[in-house]
Amino acid sequence: MVPGSRRRFHLDGALLSAMVRRDRQAAGEIPDLQGLGPGPWRPGLGIRDSGFDDGDSAVDGERVWRELETLASFSDAPAPAVTRIVFDEMDLRARAYIKALCAEASLLVHEDAVGNTFARWLGRDPKLPPVATGSHCDAIPNAGRFDGTVGVLGGLEAIRALQRAGCQPRRSIDLVLFTSEEPTRFGIGCLGSRLLAAALDPSVGDTLTSNGESLNKIRASTGFSGALNDVPLQTGAYAAFVELHIEQGPILERLKLDIGVVTAIAAPASLRIFIEGEGGHAGAVLMPDRHDAFLAAAEIALAVEAAARSTGSSDTVATCGVCELFPGAINSVPSRARLEIDVRDIDPARRDSVLAKIRRASDDVASRRGVTVRSEPINADPPALCAQPIIDAIVSACDARQLRYLRMISRAYHDSLFMSRIAPAGMIFIPCRGGVSHRPDEYASPDAIAHGTADVGRYARFAGA
Amino acid sequence: MVPGSRRRFHLDGALLSAMVRRDRQAAGEIPDLQGLGPGPWRPGLGIRDSGFDDGDSAVDGERVWRELETLASFSDAPAPAVTRIVFDEMDLRARAYIKALCAEASLLVHEDAVGNTFARWLGRDPKLPPVATGSHCDAIPNAGRFDGTVGVLGGLEAIRALQRAGCQPRRSIDLVLFTSEEPTRFGIGCLGSRLLAAALDPSVGDTLTSNGESLNKIRASTGFSGALNDVPLQTGAYAAFVELHIEQGPILERLKLDIGVVTAIAAPASLRIFIEGEGGHAGAVLMPDRHDAFLAAAEIALAVEAAARSTGSSDTVATCGVCELFPGAINSVPSRARLEIDVRDIDPARRDSVLAKIRRASDDVASRRGVTVRSEPINADPPALCAQPIIDAIVSACDARQLRYLRMISRAYHDSLFMSRIAPAGMIFIPCRGGVSHRPDEYASPDAIAHGTADVGRYARFAGA
Repeated sequence: MVPGSRRRFHLDGALLSAMVRRDRQAAGEIPDLQGLGPGPWRPGLGIRDSGFDDGDSAVDGERVWRELETLASFSDAPAPAVTRIVFDEMDLRARAYIKALCAEASLLVHEDAVGNTFARWLGRDPKLPPVATGSHCDAIPNAGRFDGTVGVLGGLEAIRALQRAGCQPRRSIDLVLFTSEEPTRFGIGCLGSRLLAAALDPSVGDTLTSNGESLNKIRASTGFSGALNDVPLQTGAYAAFVELHIEQGPILERLKLDIGVVTAIAAPASLRIFIEGEGGHAGAVLMPDRHDAFLAAAEIALAVEAAARSTGSSDTVATCGVCELFPGAINSVPSRARLEIDVRDIDPARRDSVLAKIRRASDDVASRRGVTVRSEPINADPPALCAQPIIDAIVSACDARQLRYLRMISRAYHDSLFMSRIAPAGMIFIPCRGGVSHRPDEYASPDAIAHGTADVGRYARFAGA
Repeated sequence: MVPGSRRRFHLDGALLSAMVRRDRQAAGEIPDLQGLGPGPWRPGLGIRDSGFDDGDSAVDGERVWRELETLASFSDAPAPAVTRIVFDEMDLRARAYIKALCAEASLLVHEDAVGNTFARWLGRDPKLPPVATGSHCDAIPNAGRFDGTVGVLGGLEAIRALQRAGCQPRRSIDLVLFTSEEPTRFGIGCLGSRLLAAALDPSVGDTLTSNGESLNKIRASTGFSGALNDVPLQTGAYAAFVELHIEQGPILERLKLDIGVVTAIAAPASLRIFIEGEGGHAGAVLMPDRHDAFLAAAEIALAVEAAARSTGSSDTVATCGVCELFPGAINSVPSRARLEIDVRDIDPARRDSVLAKIRRASDDVASRRGVTVRSEPINADPPALCAQPIIDAIVSACDARQLRYLRMISRAYHDSLFMSRIAPAGMIFIPCRGGVSHRPDEYASPDAIAHGTADVGRYARFAGA
């Protein structure tokens, strides 16, 4: 792919076998759990790309920081919280701001039918598949300002730094802004990248809804009116894709490391559980006569936790983030409940065993409490392995700048999960304070962001841009 | 009170000692649990009020049924469900309909500052304290059409039947429509009757809120703008008060009885529990690091159930009807949860022991899960004993009409709970299908409603009207 480079990428099948903890390993030590590879303290493995500048000084960290602040101001929640729901006014204003920054950097911007936005720095050979970077800018209710946005604005600054350094990339470099990585509005995460990777049928335009309005209707009302059939990219459309992101976990901070080199992205699955019991007056229905939908939901939520813990691996996580009761009155026995459950693991078989345990527990609760329990899968995606050449490129970038890094898995899922289906993909993690994310106190330091940003630029060079 | 009557009422202090199950009685048999008094099948104890017509034929059950149907049409939920929130448009339309019916029956209508509505049939001696009947017409979300409304429209028909029978009551008879028996909007039940009984400080006009708007602001916007200080009634303002109501429990139907003669109303208590945990990304926060507010809430809800069951008495009920999560996103660990809990018992000490168990369980959950749990009492009312002369009057009315009745307690609370503080009070229960209430399939038969309505008229006569 990169003729003349000292490092050749082997993008067709030469994927890293997952660096996953072996079954018998103890669950206590984070390095073990993270499949610690060559280790963060080994002497650098990096191979300098001949003639490639160390672009450290070129990254304007302060500017990225200011832009992150401005972007955070487009929020439905008061600062420091950020709430930015896809296709709502704040999302559209955030997109407009990012597109303006891209135009300022002379990037060519185009958008697809679902609002995925592509900003291209044309390379010397525009016919070659470009390299790409990017992330998302939507935010769940009451979230923070770094999730997704660091990958967008950091990616943009990486491009600008290369521009300022006088680079003339051979391949074009794309900055990609993905639509609705968060599932808040339509119930499914990575909406834009799923469609890009043809991992979602375009008929979802009619079937996915928000408050009764279809995705098609909502996107059209915000100006995205093309056919969803036109969204999927061809495999090979990109030579490489890398996403810069905060870790959203505590490991890099605990180990005082600069960069996480992601080797695999956990397999997420999510489902809705509908419980139908029997309502009635809270004062009048005797306890033995009750079929309380909330108590059934409570038991299922605790069973979700127990199922995740039962695997003995800290790579397994499961969460019940939504519980809605009907009628939801203090003096009425809940007749219906709806749970939304998220299960992830790097090992899809182990994840599926957790799902099976949840199903069994639900059945047990249903028969014991005399309620009906129906579960509806939302998604069950396989894990993604990052492309070995990308991993190598990121490791090389770290070595070149003497950054301390760790090969690690991502438990959170990202648009890279789907980009990996159509392009060699990888992720660069930077530490975030306390591992906190999806909260107003989410924080990544300006230094960490600058390190990550510099790494993106370097990756792009290693990847043949 | 009723000179010349063969039955004299002793309204000052001659209260029935509660007909509550003794401690050592088994908890299995419903008659025991209900403090079965003279028993439904004993030969009639009734003493006919000399010269008093059996008004059966006078009750126009069909008309009440039609009026219940019309009233049910004022609803925010589609039929058969009824949702009618106090001071919302449907509540105001329902009130207007009832006031029009009262005016048609030549009753004099006035309203107090919180919207309690009084429709008076003037007696021959209007200076005597009137006798009264009535109930409420608000309905929780997705409720049925009989809760409260039977007592309002049945009470009205009882008055009309007496009018048609040519009665000239000595005492005035009031039909009372209480404001906000349901706690849906302001979080506290029996708002109108609490204020009538001076059981609530008038400052609640400022402190009780709905979506950030104060009770004072909301009531003023619907035309009820007087001072809440003017709402309380003097003790003795009424010679007697009786509320006709569906049982909201299964006992009368199971035992094939016509009437429940309420001897006491259970002691309700309610509280809110606020749980503060730690949020975070559902994929990234490791299971052992979590402080999930929902899982804490789930354990507390199950502890509420266990505490109610632990008393061994079916007179104890406890319900967790509200559970709200924050941020409430599928991929976010819940950081905060709010529960609303309702606990009732006929024995206030036993009820308080349940509350204490809930507190202990909450403390345990808090320390085990590393979350903070704060509980805020909403109310903890003592039980009310019905006045013996009223009980006797209802029993006599049943005997006179050879209705099969049962002395029973009310687990649901009612406006009578507060009316009993300022007047001798009692309740007439009629069976409802399956004991179901607070649900769209709530149902009481036209016959049952007619029986209850006739009993109200007869009570009014026995009570000296």
